[in-house]
Amino acid sequence: MSNGKHLAKGSTAPVLPDDGKLVLYSMRFCPYAQRVHLMLDAKKIPYHTVYINLSEKPEWYFEKNPLGKVPALQVPGKEGVTLYESLVLADYIEEAYSAQQRKLYPIDPFRKAQDRILIERFNGVITAYYRILFSTDGIPPGAITEFGIALDVFEKELKSRGTAYFGGDKPGMIDYMIWPWCERVDLLKFALGDKYELDKERFGKLLQWRDLMEKDEAVKQSFISTENHTKFLQSRKNGENNYDILA
Amino acid sequence: MSNGKHLAKGSTAPVLPDDGKLVLYSMRFCPYAQRVHLMLDAKKIPYHTVYINLSEKPEWYFEKNPLGKVPALQVPGKEGVTLYESLVLADYIEEAYSAQQRKLYPIDPFRKAQDRILIERFNGVITAYYRILFSTDGIPPGAITEFGIALDVFEKELKSRGTAYFGGDKPGMIDYMIWPWCERVDLLKFALGDKYELDKERFGKLLQWRDLMEKDEAVKQSFISTENHTKFLQSRKNGENNYDILA
Repeated sequence: MSNGKHLAKGSTAPVLPDDGKLVLYSMRFCPYAQRVHLMLDAKKIPYHTVYINLSEKPEWYFEKNPLGKVPALQVPGKEGVTLYESLVLADYIEEAYSAQQRKLYPIDPFRKAQDRILIERFNGVITAYYRILFSTDGIPPGAITEFGIALDVFEKELKSRGTAYFGGDKPGMIDYMIWPWCERVDLLKFALGDKYELDKERFGKLLQWRDLMEKDEAVKQSFISTENHTKFLQSRKNGENNYDILA
Repeated sequence: MSNGKHLAKGSTAPVLPDDGKLVLYSMRFCPYAQRVHLMLDAKKIPYHTVYINLSEKPEWYFEKNPLGKVPALQVPGKEGVTLYESLVLADYIEEAYSAQQRKLYPIDPFRKAQDRILIERFNGVITAYYRILFSTDGIPPGAITEFGIALDVFEKELKSRGTAYFGGDKPGMIDYMIWPWCERVDLLKFALGDKYELDKERFGKLLQWRDLMEKDEAVKQSFISTENHTKFLQSRKNGENNYDILA
């Protein structure tokens, strides 16, 4: 992943080489965009990254994506329009590059559907996570309990699969789609004043999995330390939105 | 579709013939469940329907689906577990029955992704629709405008595709996934006291499409008249939840 700066209002659209590569519009700290980086990196698909300043969006970006959202993917030969929505992109990449690249979903439609249900259910973890992280008036009652219960589903699933990763002996679609928030889980200490740590017994399998995931080649490419995530979060909370901390 | 009654708390799980058919757990007025009926009916895949009383869920149902949600699909040979989430089911059915049955998604992954984005964007219509329908203290400001703007996207898309249906000369995945709320659009009159009608100019293409859709064989099989939808809505608003109006 490049260490480019985030393009803002008043910028001009970057001119990229006509080399047949995908272009991913991203934001360095966006977990949804990270999902797509992870997939492309896991499949070793070459691509350009253009970082977008989401609080001061470039005017030209709305021509690429009318909703102004990231992640968005521009496919060679389809320059007038981007694809967006992280899970739609995940499915697109899986299908469009299925012939040559490593598959992330099981081939069997039933098992694939079970994986997709789990990815949907991870929204429960995400919702509780943000309720805690962006609470302004004390932690909402029940949010920590809710977070734990939503995460229990994944601990239980990993145990019942009996494999190192949700995808088996290598990370698969579930692993990469839930990873961005797992990378950020220690940020909860920021909101909870060092009071929060994942219980080592309750989440034993997930903690082992997290250690393994941190060593994965694709994960390493977009990995950001808790220290840097915290810096960005602080800049976001005080309204500075310092997207370029790492640039 | 059968005209069975909705099974409630205290009921016993129905014993179905061992005939290799899918079993769809449904609720007669649930638009998300209707999505799955539409797909199965369009693909002419035989299935059993078991209706679930959602306000008094049968105890046995939680063994079928731990979340107690409908729609849920039981696949022959996989009796211990159901698949759920309407869009996951849609993808599963499309993939598992792709060899023999009519395809509802385009084969090209790029065009398929574009269709999936539109289905995601229809959530904007759904959200605004329920904000109007279930408002208790007057219509929330902006909700009607929001509903119209979200629907504009679909009018514009149908115009730009230049086809009778989103799927081309036959209904495809978008058509069936958005249909349940389009069938129910005149229910807005219930909330708005006869003041709401889709503007014939602004939504000209969609209104033509709606007339065509009503004649579709798959749509006819789960179709409920506005009159009956209204009866159910009234029963829901006054806390009776009369699921069996049509049984």
